Amino acid sequence: MRRFSWPGGFPSHLSPEVPGVVHEGGELGYALATAFGAALDKPDLLVACLVGDGEAETGPTAGSWHANKYLSPDTDGAVLPVLHLNGYKISSPTVYGCMSDEELTAYFSGAGWSPYLVDVTRAEDPDALLAETLDLAHREIVAVRERWQPGERAVWPMIVLRSPKGWGVPESDVAGRPLEGTFRAHQVPLNDVHSDDAEFALLEQWLRSYRPEDLFGADGRPHDDLLAELPPEDLRLGRVPEANGGALRRDLPLPEVARFAVEVPAPGAASASPTGTAGEWLAELMRATEDRRDFRVMCPDELESNKLGALLDATDRTFAWPLPETAEHVAPGGRVMEVLSEHLCQGWLQGYLLTGRHGLFPCYEAFASIADSMLNQYAKFLKMSGEVLWREPVASLNYLLTSEGWRQEHNGYSHQGPGFLNNLLTKKASTARIYLPPDANTLLVTLRRCLTSTDRINLVIAGKNEGSQWLDLDAAERHCEAGAGVWDWACHGDGEPGVVLACAGGIPTVEVLAATSMLRDRAPDLTVRVVNVVDLLSLAPADRHPHGLSEEDFTDCFGSTTVPVVFGFHGYPSAVHEVLHGRPETERFHVHGYLEEGTTTTPFDLLVSNQMSRYDLAADAARRAGRPELAGRLISERDEMRAAAHEQGEDPEEITGWRWSA
Amino acid sequence: MRRFSWPGGFPSHLSPEVPGVVHEGGELGYALATAFGAALDKPDLLVACLVGDGEAETGPTAGSWHANKYLSPDTDGAVLPVLHLNGYKISSPTVYGCMSDEELTAYFSGAGWSPYLVDVTRAEDPDALLAETLDLAHREIVAVRERWQPGERAVWPMIVLRSPKGWGVPESDVAGRPLEGTFRAHQVPLNDVHSDDAEFALLEQWLRSYRPEDLFGADGRPHDDLLAELPPEDLRLGRVPEANGGALRRDLPLPEVARFAVEVPAPGAASASPTGTAGEWLAELMRATEDRRDFRVMCPDELESNKLGALLDATDRTFAWPLPETAEHVAPGGRVMEVLSEHLCQGWLQGYLLTGRHGLFPCYEAFASIADSMLNQYAKFLKMSGEVLWREPVASLNYLLTSEGWRQEHNGYSHQGPGFLNNLLTKKASTARIYLPPDANTLLVTLRRCLTSTDRINLVIAGKNEGSQWLDLDAAERHCEAGAGVWDWACHGDGEPGVVLACAGGIPTVEVLAATSMLRDRAPDLTVRVVNVVDLLSLAPADRHPHGLSEEDFTDCFGSTTVPVVFGFHGYPSAVHEVLHGRPETERFHVHGYLEEGTTTTPFDLLVSNQMSRYDLAADAARRAGRPELAGRLISERDEMRAAAHEQGEDPEEITGWRWSA
Ligand SMILES: Cc1ncc(C[n+]2csc(CCOP(=O)(O)OP(=O)(O)O)c2C)c(N)n1
Ligand SMILES: Cc1ncc(C[n+]2csc(CCOP(=O)(O)OP(=O)(O)O)c2C)c(N)n1
Repeated sequence: MRRFSWPGGFPSHLSPEVPGVVHEGGELGYALATAFGAALDKPDLLVACLVGDGEAETGPTAGSWHANKYLSPDTDGAVLPVLHLNGYKISSPTVYGCMSDEELTAYFSGAGWSPYLVDVTRAEDPDALLAETLDLAHREIVAVRERWQPGERAVWPMIVLRSPKGWGVPESDVAGRPLEGTFRAHQVPLNDVHSDDAEFALLEQWLRSYRPEDLFGADGRPHDDLLAELPPEDLRLGRVPEANGGALRRDLPLPEVARFAVEVPAPGAASASPTGTAGEWLAELMRATEDRRDFRVMCPDELESNKLGALLDATDRTFAWPLPETAEHVAPGGRVMEVLSEHLCQGWLQGYLLTGRHGLFPCYEAFASIADSMLNQYAKFLKMSGEVLWREPVASLNYLLTSEGWRQEHNGYSHQGPGFLNNLLTKKASTARIYLPPDANTLLVTLRRCLTSTDRINLVIAGKNEGSQWLDLDAAERHCEAGAGVWDWACHGDGEPGVVLACAGGIPTVEVLAATSMLRDRAPDLTVRVVNVVDLLSLAPADRHPHGLSEEDFTDCFGSTTVPVVFGFHGYPSAVHEVLHGRPETERFHVHGYLEEGTTTTPFDLLVSNQMSRYDLAADAARRAGRPELAGRLISERDEMRAAAHEQGEDPEEITGWRWSA
Repeated sequence: MRRFSWPGGFPSHLSPEVPGVVHEGGELGYALATAFGAALDKPDLLVACLVGDGEAETGPTAGSWHANKYLSPDTDGAVLPVLHLNGYKISSPTVYGCMSDEELTAYFSGAGWSPYLVDVTRAEDPDALLAETLDLAHREIVAVRERWQPGERAVWPMIVLRSPKGWGVPESDVAGRPLEGTFRAHQVPLNDVHSDDAEFALLEQWLRSYRPEDLFGADGRPHDDLLAELPPEDLRLGRVPEANGGALRRDLPLPEVARFAVEVPAPGAASASPTGTAGEWLAELMRATEDRRDFRVMCPDELESNKLGALLDATDRTFAWPLPETAEHVAPGGRVMEVLSEHLCQGWLQGYLLTGRHGLFPCYEAFASIADSMLNQYAKFLKMSGEVLWREPVASLNYLLTSEGWRQEHNGYSHQGPGFLNNLLTKKASTARIYLPPDANTLLVTLRRCLTSTDRINLVIAGKNEGSQWLDLDAAERHCEAGAGVWDWACHGDGEPGVVLACAGGIPTVEVLAATSMLRDRAPDLTVRVVNVVDLLSLAPADRHPHGLSEEDFTDCFGSTTVPVVFGFHGYPSAVHEVLHGRPETERFHVHGYLEEGTTTTPFDLLVSNQMSRYDLAADAARRAGRPELAGRLISERDEMRAAAHEQGEDPEEITGWRWSA
């Protein structure tokens, strides 16, 4: 007991140290989504989920009530939500607490639930009433599972429990103000016990009302008759196997990537869509897990748009509510989940992973930030879990961010936001991984790595558009293994480079290669080295991140500390500077990236607005290598190209038709 | 027309360039919350808000339906939501589209609305039906406003509009697959018009079906009879004055801060709660705006917890639904809004600001990240608005982050997250401002500045706990004006410093001052300079941020480029490195901050876990100044103190009782 909320002891909230916990709940809003994630593909699991009426006000919780429509009674478990109406949050009344019984019934029935209202203040024997209601709900769940037919509504029970806030605390405080049933009962109902003797006495009286002497011996051990009431060990909440999901996790039967790899006879000599290619491989994984049912994809209805549609040949989008006739690839039992809620996708996936399964969250890059705070909390959960010996590693949380801002296809400025990776950079080095595979084969190899790993948060950022392919599978394997490396085939000149052109991300890679060939043509005597970074954290000093390149490898890539590096980066330049921090002489890195300039426009115009076009990169390289005149010429050319784009409404053929040639 | 979705032309989404727009909506989920924010304190305003059935799936939208309970019919305007059920989002069916009419009616009635269902496929004359329904809804709104009495439910109308997706597009595509009413009608229904002649012909046929020749002349100008149908200019949507809110904005009648300032006879010789002090000033501002009703505070039910309770003496928490008897300080018409939804707080505030009013969003620091992506989009809105000549500046979006992770009072690891500021750092220098006032008077001065400013996103991070005060009001004014400065009274020794101890944030300031006095005692011959940074962006190079200190001022603070700087920072160290980027010799900055280590523990233990305690700072300073032995001793002392905290469950008096002495 003394270790509760004590330095070095147990934290005050539920946390990974506590057996049975798969969700901390310190940041309110995600309990319900997590509960649904836990129940998926566990037909024998019943997940009860307690939701505070304060928590119910959060958007993520409000949206999660509709997750009932995604549970398939034959292949999934059930969720029994208990909405706890104690009327107050910290000091304000709650919205749900102020709703009438009729409103509550209508609201939850409308959302497709069968609500049971339990009001302890109106019950003679509240415990018996709650127990009966739970039994009733359980029987109803069993009945739904038995009777449900595809195409019908599966209306599950839920419980609305009205009880006074702080039920059991003293009726009023020492000043005579009501305590039980009011906001004053929140968290620590008696605050001044250290300094106020009357309050201390009230606390003692209250705690003694539980008759501790009848419950515990002098040594603090519960009496035998109390212990006899405990359920048998394997029925205790802390012992539910799903709550230590890592112990249930099985390695995925990952298909050979070789069968899906793009043939790349020479760099640039093949064209493919990275996510399109990966989609085929993921579809095969879907098929391979058809019986195991331990792999799912959660997505805010962007699978098709992200060119991952192949998945829908392997499985359906799950939905267990009557459907419009024109719906395609939607059916109960599918293992793709599409809902326009990044919160729900993330919550589902968290619940699914922590109970021992695997998954992937493909998302428009700009909108992944919707889940920023959920990522924060999940990273904390993982970090603490790693410090608990009995917690087995769970499958990693994998994001596949695509539909990146550089190629917006008429979606505009709101869809341009590469900041999700900056948030991940604030996390522990043991948790965070960030990959920017520049083409299809590197994406395949990266995804395989992510789906094999445990206890990580893997961020994979990749393009969806058809485009030049750089590495054949062998080269991709080596490159991904190294994390970053010189692309010899793209370098020119001999000896120590006059400038290094580096890139991370699909679009920057194209621009850097185009810049390199411009330099080769116009400054043939300049030695240019090209480096591609697929594992962003390989740039970090090795003592700051486990993926950090050794000093030697780093120098092999970027040359001695006097060589300028012009870096084309997918995201905000600050992220590269942040990762590089601690390397010597980082001032020589001149990072181009997203400068928060944008609108609906052509890809080239957007690059120019952010000083990230091939011309900008080549010009910067020329300037750093002491060729200011060339730099000036390149900038003029850039401006001409841009004017043409504005004139014609599309990028000049010179830009769009450019291909790498050795 | 040609400028639509054209480089240099109009973006494809609604955006600030378009008159009448106060919400872009590219990132879905916030339309409804924004609409409610716009209606507040505008009794004559009716805000119609179109919500897609896809958008309705988002958590923030789902939570926003309950915002009806916060509208006071006598002092606020009305919101008329139109939920548009076209059945599909991008390619999946929608949840709401799959709900039956009975479910929809129950759901929205339960949420306190009076729903009208309009199904265009079942109507003979859909336009007439919709027009009649709108009239009906309007009459109902008028009736609610006339009849409503405090304590009653104000049940407003809302409309559920069922129509086929892509109503009006060709019935099927060239392959004969159904188009109208299906997901294929999303966004760009005919994709291959460039390459597919049949599709081009279909497009032409479709567009010609609108008979453009009857509508426009050869020069593209609409015919006079069409123009005659336009409403008079001042009734056009683009001309609603509220949609260019900056033009309505009036400067706030800010109370004199002098009346609320803490008397600080000497540094450390007074004690106060920063937010407690600010709360009194804000309460006075609430009173001063009682008649104008153009200042509001939105908060996730944390006002009391954040020590801003004084506001509740000046106004109530608004709520227009029947309340429990024990509720206090809650009534319709109040101008504080407490809902457990950071999304709703942010959405309300955005709508309120963009229609010409002022506000403040106090929030637990760790949970502000819930609004990360809303901040992203709002920053974009401001940036684009700044490029539109006719948009007048709106009041800034002001966050007051408190209940910071360093003082968690038994809330634990989940409540430790200073990353919101990192996200703001990715925004345009013209938009982002970050202040870390170290005490009450600097907080007052900072808040006054924020509430005077326009078109900014101001992040203010301040402590809530009673603690030592450093600056009297005059000094606070000068310090805030400078942004950063040497605290002469805390320095010791003569000449060029051997080490600079810098700090930003309330807790780091205490630790740095305590470290300084340790060094004064134990290394009296070491010259130590103390610098406090209140305006984080003053550290940025002047060419990167308008608040950046000149080189001269920067050197005056931090000494020549050879002096080591040990920096105690409130947040993640990376944020300081990021801001410093571009200053010369930044390697001499050794930043201590939050390292993502934590649990429920004592403040001192938490500081030590993150190497941010006074001992850690003093030891690092000693080490950097070439006194490794002293550093070692300090670390041993730290460990003893920590052991004592673990032993006693609270921090030793030596830590908690420490006071600055000159
Ligand atoms: C997202 C989020 N915002 C704010 C808080 C601060 N907070 C802690 S407890 C609480 C009230 C919770 O009320 P309820 O869910 O009804 O739980 P109860 O304590 O009444 O059972 C609030 C607002 C939080 N924990 N999470
Ligand atoms: C938060 C968010 N997630 C994902 C998207 C990608 N997206 C764009 S449109 C769309 C479907 C929108 O459906 P609905 O709201 O019904 O609008 P409709 O086009 O059918 O009128 C989606 C998922 C987005 N814009 N915002």
